[in-house]
Amino acid sequence: MSNEQLDLLREQLDELNMDLLNLINKRGELVKKVAKSKPNQGPDKKYDPVREHQMLEKIKNQNEGPFQDATIIHLFKEIFKAGLELQEKDYHKEMLV
Amino acid sequence: MSNEQLDLLREQLDELNMDLLNLINKRGELVKKVAKSKPNQGPDKKYDPVREHQMLEKIKNQNEGPFQDATIIHLFKEIFKAGLELQEKDYHKEMLV
Repeated sequence: MSNEQLDLLREQLDELNMDLLNLINKRGELVKKVAKSKPNQGPDKKYDPVREHQMLEKIKNQNEGPFQDATIIHLFKEIFKAGLELQEKDYHKEMLV
Repeated sequence: MSNEQLDLLREQLDELNMDLLNLINKRGELVKKVAKSKPNQGPDKKYDPVREHQMLEKIKNQNEGPFQDATIIHLFKEIFKAGLELQEKDYHKEMLV
């Protein structure tokens, strides 16, 4: 493969990274909205293991690779955790108002 | 917020999860192509810290939140690591042929 072809692949990878970034942040906004829809709950109440399990099952069922289910689950758990931290930050901000 | 509105937000979240799943797997395919473009290199040669740093800088520069840069960097490092593991798996498969 020529260097030109490699450069092209890397450009595509950079574009894909940006799409991923936008989607992850869009997910963050959505998660904040969900949290706001459950008022009067402490930060520990934001974590809903049943709902998380449901989401992970749906994701696993749709996974066609190349990443294995275990890898996909690991990545999504990290994404969920980040979302949860975002909700907790918002909760503490509210408490300070 | 009504239960109906919460259900709608959760539907949107499920759709967004699917978009993320597709994008992560698309990235996996692309990363495999990049790896194939560098033949005769051992698995340890697949990791390119300079290129990783470049990608992370571009991502950080484009990050508009709500997630903080540190969170975004953490998530992308996990995604990169998964891609690297995919390349290593492919390399070992080639060695067995």
